[in-house]
Amino acid sequence: MRLSRYFLPVLKESPRDATIVSHQYMLRAGMIKQSSAGIYSWLPLGFKVLKRIEQIVHEEQERAGHIAMLMPTIQSADLWRESGRYDDYGDEMLRITDRNKNDLLYGPTNEELITDIFRSHVSSYKALPLTLYHIQWKFRDERRPRFGVMRGREFYMKDGYTFDLTKEDAMHAYNRHLVSYLRTYERMGLQAIPMRADSGPIGGDDTHEFLVLADTGESEVFYDAAVTDLSFGDRDIDYDDVTQCAEVMEEFTAKYARTDETHDQALFDAIPADRQRTARGIEVGQIFYFGTKYSDAMGATVQGPDGKPTPVHMGSHGIGVSRLLGAIIEASHDDKGIIWPEGVTPFHVGIVNLKQGDADADAACQSLYAAVAALGLEALYDDRDERAGSKFGTMDMIGLPWRITVGPRGLKNGVVELTSRKTGESEEMPPEQAIAKIGEIYRAHGLGSGPSK
Amino acid sequence: MRLSRYFLPVLKESPRDATIVSHQYMLRAGMIKQSSAGIYSWLPLGFKVLKRIEQIVHEEQERAGHIAMLMPTIQSADLWRESGRYDDYGDEMLRITDRNKNDLLYGPTNEELITDIFRSHVSSYKALPLTLYHIQWKFRDERRPRFGVMRGREFYMKDGYTFDLTKEDAMHAYNRHLVSYLRTYERMGLQAIPMRADSGPIGGDDTHEFLVLADTGESEVFYDAAVTDLSFGDRDIDYDDVTQCAEVMEEFTAKYARTDETHDQALFDAIPADRQRTARGIEVGQIFYFGTKYSDAMGATVQGPDGKPTPVHMGSHGIGVSRLLGAIIEASHDDKGIIWPEGVTPFHVGIVNLKQGDADADAACQSLYAAVAALGLEALYDDRDERAGSKFGTMDMIGLPWRITVGPRGLKNGVVELTSRKTGESEEMPPEQAIAKIGEIYRAHGLGSGPSK
Repeated sequence: MRLSRYFLPVLKESPRDATIVSHQYMLRAGMIKQSSAGIYSWLPLGFKVLKRIEQIVHEEQERAGHIAMLMPTIQSADLWRESGRYDDYGDEMLRITDRNKNDLLYGPTNEELITDIFRSHVSSYKALPLTLYHIQWKFRDERRPRFGVMRGREFYMKDGYTFDLTKEDAMHAYNRHLVSYLRTYERMGLQAIPMRADSGPIGGDDTHEFLVLADTGESEVFYDAAVTDLSFGDRDIDYDDVTQCAEVMEEFTAKYARTDETHDQALFDAIPADRQRTARGIEVGQIFYFGTKYSDAMGATVQGPDGKPTPVHMGSHGIGVSRLLGAIIEASHDDKGIIWPEGVTPFHVGIVNLKQGDADADAACQSLYAAVAALGLEALYDDRDERAGSKFGTMDMIGLPWRITVGPRGLKNGVVELTSRKTGESEEMPPEQAIAKIGEIYRAHGLGSGPSK
Repeated sequence: MRLSRYFLPVLKESPRDATIVSHQYMLRAGMIKQSSAGIYSWLPLGFKVLKRIEQIVHEEQERAGHIAMLMPTIQSADLWRESGRYDDYGDEMLRITDRNKNDLLYGPTNEELITDIFRSHVSSYKALPLTLYHIQWKFRDERRPRFGVMRGREFYMKDGYTFDLTKEDAMHAYNRHLVSYLRTYERMGLQAIPMRADSGPIGGDDTHEFLVLADTGESEVFYDAAVTDLSFGDRDIDYDDVTQCAEVMEEFTAKYARTDETHDQALFDAIPADRQRTARGIEVGQIFYFGTKYSDAMGATVQGPDGKPTPVHMGSHGIGVSRLLGAIIEASHDDKGIIWPEGVTPFHVGIVNLKQGDADADAACQSLYAAVAALGLEALYDDRDERAGSKFGTMDMIGLPWRITVGPRGLKNGVVELTSRKTGESEEMPPEQAIAKIGEIYRAHGLGSGPSK
């Protein structure tokens, strides 16, 4: 994309009501614009990151064998009356009456709707196990929306629902989700620690939240420092292998890690003192096993191997897709702006032309731009007639991990400059070498193989 | 995808309230499930087609230089009061009050919101031309929702907004959209004819609707038979070339083609009698130029080259993404089910194993399945222990354009059967040849280049 043809309304100042850095930077980098309290438009740069994150979530869900679908945003109140949650849910539910005086609501979650789909179409245990998920906009009418997309009212979420014949099978689904979530967050450059949590209004027995450590987190967390040494890495996993998934679960949850809601001081005190940590965390996902709560209430049974109707064991599993943008920025920024991890960056490389209008510089930039596209990657080419300082400032704020700087002086020596946003280190090299290095960096993240369409 | 692990609830019977074939087949093929009047869940197969269509729309919009973003579903009533449409819009607007007694609404369209974004961020003519678009769920509280996704209440739509300094520039944006829409529909295997139309509540001077001819269409249309001979084909187009775009506009709109709303009998009678046609059509898109209607009302001005504030000329341009599934099925089906055009099919090929459990047949199917994936395409492998007739019936209903049938008898002769859903013709050939042919067919549609991830 050529910046002169893009829509990137970078702001010089932070709006006063933005109190945390991710909210400030998303506004300043021209990623979002508030349209009403807790409701945002995603400007082109923000939308690109949102799509990158959504794509990673889809890929990892499909890898785990989960099936994508899509439920609507507006639901009938009837199903919620059946489950008993219509009255329970409280003021956070956005209740709506249509022109025919029917009670509707903007879905804050989808247990009822998916259970209805299941009971309408599945009658035999032979169709199990089954995991259906969707990524859809949801609405929670927060009393005090704040922190930008971190606690918005309209938010984008992946929620998946598992249906199994037995508790044992359901726990495998639970473990499988934990594994897929570990992979998902790591691909986004995040360490998200599974912590034993409280189930809240969804209900349920077993539940873990995934928390990203950050000073601005809404939860106080207590953990054994050893959990931060764990990483899933690129290990191969067979999602059908019950033992393998259970071992990962054990590895990542055996050590103490809890939010304030489930904190147990005695257990915490038993951790060696030099490993006891208290910090703040941002919740970016949660997995639940809730047994037959909804299948009992709504009659979601299958015929079991014994021919008898058996209520299915269910779980629900969520990732806060729009919220992740805030969490990633909270975890990865400096005082100049955002630092995107390679896996989610909106553009893979920025090209800065130091002297727009200089024939050699323009040609070199154009050729680098084409070379990046030929790698199947996307460049943002700052072709505006602006001072170098302003171009660098924009690139630093929007946080592309790699920048190629092109100027007439360097070109005379046959070199351009490749700069890492994270370390700030620059290296001069011939343009072809810069392209080769960019290709190599992104291949390590599974990105860019052939020409982009 | 292995069918035994998929969620494809094919129905034997059509629900009674489904009166048109696309609605019937979408239900019978397990693509959608109604959750309340005019509101649908997209089951996995339906969701896959929806994503294919969305992807084509994105690709063609980006090709035309339009910039993707995303506006929220819930809007504040304030902006609509500013434009004067809050009261005008009538009962089709879903009006909502939140917990703090603020008036909200579920957006039926986005002129107000995009104009607000524009006026907040753009102050100079130098940022023009600008085209921003999004694909988002919308809601129109239809009095009588019907015909499945063709006239639903919650629907998925691409709407794009153009901002230009002059009417002349805005008309280029209008023509550019017409060109991009012709390409878009043709990639979906549809002939959509641009017809002069009425602007309705959006307001405006120039507007064309794109109509797909089908007996079940809601509009009566009148046209010169010569328009159906036109096709955009794979001609190369420079979207910045004003003349080139205007020529395409002229070519595709010079001949008489109008809906009943704008029909002019005298002009129609002037067409040679043997070319006069009356038919029904399904509206799948519309382009509008409406000048400064919203920029005047909402103060969206830029500083012009003369330094004076100038209201921008605007247009809005829509494609009914979810409705397109219905339109495609209305245009492409037979009495056995759907016939997907290659460009939008949920799976590129179906593999039917005639004797599940037979070691040779199972191995051959597995190997074909892997070979399709290696082409970067997706197969649906019917690996269920079912009769051949039932497997064929399912494949015919869900409408995959190509089917490979594998049985022990054929394998003894080294062949499988490749069948076209459209013509019903089958050909025996070695498995490698079937794969080569599949690869060739889809390459002609720009699909499948390397292994799918």
